[in-house]
This record gives sequence, C-alpha cells and structure tokens, in this order.
Amino acid sequence: MPTPRIVIIGGGFGGLYTAQHLKHAPAQVTLIDRRNFHLFQPLLYQVATGGLSPANIAAPLRSILKRQRNTEVLLAEVMNIDPAAQRIDFADGESINYDYLVVATGASHNYFGNDQWSQFAPGLKSIEDATEIRRKVLMAFETAEREPDAERRKALLRFVVVGGGPTGVELAGTLGEISRETLKHDFRHINPADAEILLVEALDRILTPYDPSLSEKAKQQLEDLGVKVMLKTMVTDIQANSLRLKHGESEQTLETYNILWGAGVQASPLGAVLNRATGVALDRAGRVTVEPDMSIPGHPNLFVIGDMSLFLHQTGKPLPGVAQAAMQQGKYVAKLIQTRLSQPNHTPAPFSYYDKGSMSTIGRSKAVAQTGNLKFSGWIAWMMWLFIHVLFLVRFENQILVLLQWSGNYFTRNRSARLITGEHHELLPEVSRAIPAPESAKDRIKDPAVESTQQSRI
Amino acid sequence: MPTPRIVIIGGGFGGLYTAQHLKHAPAQVTLIDRRNFHLFQPLLYQVATGGLSPANIAAPLRSILKRQRNTEVLLAEVMNIDPAAQRIDFADGESINYDYLVVATGASHNYFGNDQWSQFAPGLKSIEDATEIRRKVLMAFETAEREPDAERRKALLRFVVVGGGPTGVELAGTLGEISRETLKHDFRHINPADAEILLVEALDRILTPYDPSLSEKAKQQLEDLGVKVMLKTMVTDIQANSLRLKHGESEQTLETYNILWGAGVQASPLGAVLNRATGVALDRAGRVTVEPDMSIPGHPNLFVIGDMSLFLHQTGKPLPGVAQAAMQQGKYVAKLIQTRLSQPNHTPAPFSYYDKGSMSTIGRSKAVAQTGNLKFSGWIAWMMWLFIHVLFLVRFENQILVLLQWSGNYFTRNRSARLITGEHHELLPEVSRAIPAPESAKDRIKDPAVESTQQSRI
Repeated sequence: MPTPRIVIIGGGFGGLYTAQHLKHAPAQVTLIDRRNFHLFQPLLYQVATGGLSPANIAAPLRSILKRQRNTEVLLAEVMNIDPAAQRIDFADGESINYDYLVVATGASHNYFGNDQWSQFAPGLKSIEDATEIRRKVLMAFETAEREPDAERRKALLRFVVVGGGPTGVELAGTLGEISRETLKHDFRHINPADAEILLVEALDRILTPYDPSLSEKAKQQLEDLGVKVMLKTMVTDIQANSLRLKHGESEQTLETYNILWGAGVQASPLGAVLNRATGVALDRAGRVTVEPDMSIPGHPNLFVIGDMSLFLHQTGKPLPGVAQAAMQQGKYVAKLIQTRLSQPNHTPAPFSYYDKGSMSTIGRSKAVAQTGNLKFSGWIAWMMWLFIHVLFLVRFENQILVLLQWSGNYFTRNRSARLITGEHHELLPEVSRAIPAPESAKDRIKDPAVESTQQSRI
Repeated sequence: MPTPRIVIIGGGFGGLYTAQHLKHAPAQVTLIDRRNFHLFQPLLYQVATGGLSPANIAAPLRSILKRQRNTEVLLAEVMNIDPAAQRIDFADGESINYDYLVVATGASHNYFGNDQWSQFAPGLKSIEDATEIRRKVLMAFETAEREPDAERRKALLRFVVVGGGPTGVELAGTLGEISRETLKHDFRHINPADAEILLVEALDRILTPYDPSLSEKAKQQLEDLGVKVMLKTMVTDIQANSLRLKHGESEQTLETYNILWGAGVQASPLGAVLNRATGVALDRAGRVTVEPDMSIPGHPNLFVIGDMSLFLHQTGKPLPGVAQAAMQQGKYVAKLIQTRLSQPNHTPAPFSYYDKGSMSTIGRSKAVAQTGNLKFSGWIAWMMWLFIHVLFLVRFENQILVLLQWSGNYFTRNRSARLITGEHHELLPEVSRAIPAPESAKDRIKDPAVESTQQSRI
C-alpha cells in the first residue's frame, strides 16, 4: 500500500499546527503556501508602525519544519480543488493528488461592496500591507514638515482608522504613541503631537467581543494617547484625499491622506471553489460551513479550519476568528487524520473549542484582557499580553530579539524600524484643495454579525 | 547678521559625519537626503543574504540627529546646484540657499557602458537592491525544488557574482554558507549544497587592494565554502537567462538565473551638475576632482566629499572609496567650516587621510585584514572584523540586537531573515532552454583604475 498523502493548504496558524501535529503520522505530509514564511499576524501592526521588522514576526516555513522528515513545503498558489478526483491544481498548471486535504487559507479584509476604497484605505494582512502603511504614515509627517500651509498640514497630520476591533484599536493606539512620544524631537517645523488620530466605529462601543466595562476602559486608554474615538459613526465614502462620515443624521467630509482599514472579514476565495465543487454552504463573509469534525458534508477526508471556516460554538455562536481557534482546530484535525490512517472507520468526538480568553493591546502599559469572568486593564493586562506573546514567539527562534527590541522601545520610547522603503519613497502628491462632497451615501459599512468575529487573535 | 546656513546633501557616512561635527557650530545646519535613513552599507550584503533585517543596518536620520538643535533633516531630492547664486533646487520645484555647501551623494555601480545588464544583474547599493537579491536567491532554490528536469535544476542553482572586490567576495562567500549550511535540511527534492557559486574577476587576483598573500588566502577560504573563483575572466555579455565569459582566447556561455553585480563605481550624477556649473574636472568614474581642502576650485564654500570625490592621497594615489575616508573628510570639512565662521580668511592645512587598514569578511570565521605591515586571515581576522563592525553599530542604537542575531546565526548556522517579500513572489519564469550565443563580445568589463578603489568600506 502506498504511503498516504496528506495535503495542507495554508501556512498560517491553522495549517502550520496541523502539519506539526502530523509529525509522527505514517504519511507523506505536504504543506502548501504562496509565501515562504509563516506570519505571526497578531504583531503585524508593530511592523506597520515601525516597532518591529518583518523578519521579527515571520519565520521561513522550511526552517520551522526542516527536522520533520515526513513533511515537505511547497511554494505554490492553489487555483482549484477537485474533491471528486482528490486533486489540487496550481496556478502554474501542475497538480497533485491527496488522500486527506486540510484547507486553511484564512481571510482578508472586507470593504463590504466598496472594493474601490481599498486603494485609499489599505488593510493590514500581509508584510507588504504593513510596510506600505509604515511608508504612508511616515511620509505624512515628512510631507507636513515641508508644507507651509497650515490647513494642508492639518490634513496631512490627520489619521483615520476605520473599525474598532483589535486591529483598529492597536493601530490607533500606536499612532497615538508615535505622534506623542516617538517623534517628539524629530521635526523642526511641525509638532508631531498635533496629529489628529480618529478611530471610527459603527457600533456604540469598541472591542465588542469584550465586556462593555472593558470597552469603556479601552476607550479611555486610547483617549489618554490622544486618540479621538468616534462611536456610532459610519464611513459612507472614501476618496483619494478625503473620507465621508455619517453620525446619526449629520454627515461630514474630512480631508485626510491616511486612512487605515481595520474592519470586516472576507474568507479566502478557496471557499467559493469548495462551494462550486461540493455545494457546501457559505455565509455572507464567504466562510465554509463545516461539520462537527471540521470536514465538509459528504467529504470526510476534506477539512476546512481557521478563519475561513464557520463552526458553531457550543454556545451556538460562531467561533471567533482568532489564532487560538485555528490552532486548536489544526491539532484536532491532525489527530483525527492520524487515527483514521490506522482505523479507517473511526468516528471522532466533535471538535470543541476551549476559550482561553481574549486580550487586546492599546499601547505602552495599556491593554484589556478577559478570561472567563476575570477582567483586567491597564499595566497588568499589558504585562499579560506581553508575556503571552513573547512566549508564543518561542516557535519563531527570535523571541529574545523581539523581547530586547521591545524593552529598548519601552525605555527609550523609540521605534527603530521606521524606515521608508519600497518603490515609492517620494513625498506625497500635491494636496488637492477641492474636496468633492459625494452625494451617494452608502447606508452602512459594517455588518455586526461579521464584525463580532474580529476578536483578539491569540 | 543672519545665522549662516550650512547645507549638506547626502546622509551617508560623509554627510552624516559632517552634520554631527557641526553640532556646536553657530549656524543653521540642513541635512538633505532622498531617504529618511542612514544606511550602514558595509553590512548590506547581510540583508541580501537573509542574515539581518533592513532595520538592523539602517537608522532614521531624524532619530540620529534629534537632539542636535541647530540641525534639521529635509527629505528631498536635489536636481540642481547653482554655485553662483548659492542655491539648491529640488525635484518638487522648491529651492533653498546656502552659505556653505557639502555634497556627499556617493556612488553607485558601473556597468561600463552596458546599462542594459543592470536588469539581469542587480548591484547592491540600497535596501531595495538587498531585498530584491534576497528574493531572487531564495526563489532560485524554491523553483529548483519543484523543477523535475536535472539540467534546468543545475542552471537554477548556478549563482554568478561579478567582481572580486569586497562586495563580490562577501556575496559569494555568504552564498556558499547559505547553500552548504543554512539550507542543509530545508529541501526534499534538491540538495542545496549542489549549488554552483562562481566568482568572476577580470584581474589575476581578488581583493586587489590587499597584499597578494591575502588575496590568495581569501581565495582559499572561498574555495573552502564551495565557491569557484574564476580569475582573468571577463564578462562579455549578460542576457535574461545567461552570461557570456571570456578567459584568454576561450569563450563560454553559462545558463544562469542569478547574476549579482559587484563591480565598478559610478559617482553620483550631482558630479556632472557641478561640472557643468563650475567646470570642475571629473574622472572616468564621474568623480569630482577636489582641492587639498576638499573644496571645488574657485568655490571655497563648496565641498565634495566621500565616494563622489577624487582626492589624491599623500602617496599620489586616489583615496579608496571606503567609509573611513568619507568620515575623515566629513570631520575635516565640518571643522574647516566652523573655523571659517569666526575667521573668514582662515587657510587650513590640507586634508590628510589616516589609513587605519582594510578588512574584508568572507564567511563564518573567514576574513582577511591588513593594517600597516600586519596581515591577518581566518578566525582572528574575522573576530577583528566583527568587533569593529559591532562597535560601529553603536551609533545605530541597535548594535546589541545585531550582535545577538549574529551570535544566534553563528551557533545555529541559521539565517532568520530569509523572507521572500515584495510585489513579485511568484516562482521564476519558465526556464528558456535555447540560450542565445551573442557575437558581439565587449572587449572589457573592468577598469582596473576604477576597480582598485573598491576596497573594504570601513
């Protein structure tokens, strides 16, 4: 009998954990990703704000799995899955067959039908997103330093973060720190602390997955950093140099060159591929509805895990789109497949999520955390967050470097990775004074059902 | 009397040292650069080979100079210098005036009239060059891993480094280490140690500024790392997938996808601007011939320093294009200007270069060093190199991180920053089997007079 082949698509938390838990499986394991590294997404905002370098939060997949002899890493882009033929087709025309398949290709942002906004309001999902945001933010200060007109300077130093989930809160808090602390002595013609940082949230509080008391604490901590939190406020339009906001009946247009998108979830397009091939149901965010064992109905050897799966929690709610859930699912599926290799008719207990709690950081000594009925905020929550994240980075071989870099940042309030790199390092284009006031106000930008899954991702 | 304005163009070793030594000058100092950071160029090859991150070897200029109250940093591109009007014009149409001007915009590679080669054989001068080379090198291994054809695999794993100066030696040595050590367990279908690494040099030895015995030692150390050193060999043509070499009367064409350019020096285009404006003489590499006080003839308030200047050494030879020379010139010019501010007719002693020696690294525990009549090679030279470079990085605030990263790399033989990033992370294009054999052999690619200034840059 030939060695069974287990194929995993995606090297994020779900896919990588599946592969690692198949270490002793009598099978050939193939992990496929478009990129050659695993990305520690929960710290991506640190790269976007110049606190860490890309390599601090990414590790080559080959390096992580080099000693795992039954496993190979394949750098390739999957275009199609054929569950009937048990075959995967790559973008370059090649194909491979599988005996078991685990799909874990995650999710990206959701502009809720306004994809044209993405060019003006980048989201934060990849290393390239992070260095692009870093470039834009730093160039805004540089351009303001050379801008003689006071009104234009004000617009250049206006930063708008859309979405009061963990990503938006982290970005807004860090922008507050950068403008108030890091850049304090750097400029001669502007005061970076004059930067206006707005956090826009459609619901009536930020960090909705948390207890309302923690949402309020997080808001206060953001305000201490100079961030203006705008609740019950919707984005109705985004143009190159402006943003239109609606709060109740009143609308306003703000001139701004820095809009960061932290709202919404859109599952990987491979969800739609599986839907066409098997008829499996997708939700509005494109997530694949899975069975209690994370498989697809009618395909017991095909599993979907992590952010691209829709799994109903014991409580009846969908699981949050966090690393913790993806990791537990990866471990569960790996054990299930390994058991099936020796007992083909094994019926497993359904997957059960163990919620270890949630934590979100806001800035230096500022965070909120919640586990069971326990709630923490401020310095103690931040220390918990720091401890758990550093512990986590152990897998990355460079945790000590990150800890040292952070210690350095903490004491010096410096952020040494604030390089403006990439093809476009010229100053921002000439500021357009005439701001178009669009008439067609979109009625909503946020889907609370989707947004509620955007919890802290660890 | 208004405060005199001293303008420095370029934030490299020359420009930054000039600015720092003007800390106490009763003047307004303006440092202009296109980029927002100072780059520690001697370690750029470490970024290109995944050993360090860009932020480890770059520091924001504003951050370095934040406490220097008389100094401002301007992010701008200089298009024109008008010495008669004492004015600088920027690419965006703005201008500023100066009382004293220091031009220190360095040099880039020289393809000796074959600029079309640059697209196939990138040089190593910027952060973007380094991450692009890193991407290309890593993608070659990834593509080979998926290539079934043995001949194509061989071509994909053939790396050619052009130029046996310090940059070429560092790149070739590090490629040897990567293929023999770092990637040892990473692949399942190829043996990275099968990679063929060629170092091509037109002269009869590498590292020509050193004593011939050290050139020979460096060659042996490279060969220990699996690098094939091809002396007296000229590049006569470069195409997308191939390279043509001439050794004596024999010519050969090699199929390869990785050609790295480490040869030649071409001074910054601002040299030509000064030539047109003042008639100052340029040499073949475009360098500006300066007076004994580093000024331009007839313009005692306009100085050119660093790689873009041609200054004759006490021995009658041109100064080497190394960081040490630029730094000493920066300090000299800063002191001269500061004295002139109080004594306008002060005539200084001519600039005099103090040669502290040269060192080049080849790999782990492999290097050569020479100071006065003392010569070192192997582990002791490598420790000297390491000690001096780490000491140097003190200015960068992150020297401890680099030291730790290196220590980690040394013991684990790992290189954690080997991320494939950027817009193009797809596999290499389909290998073209038909290699054109060009007829028009260029008669030379190297100018020994220019090459001899390509010494170790510290």
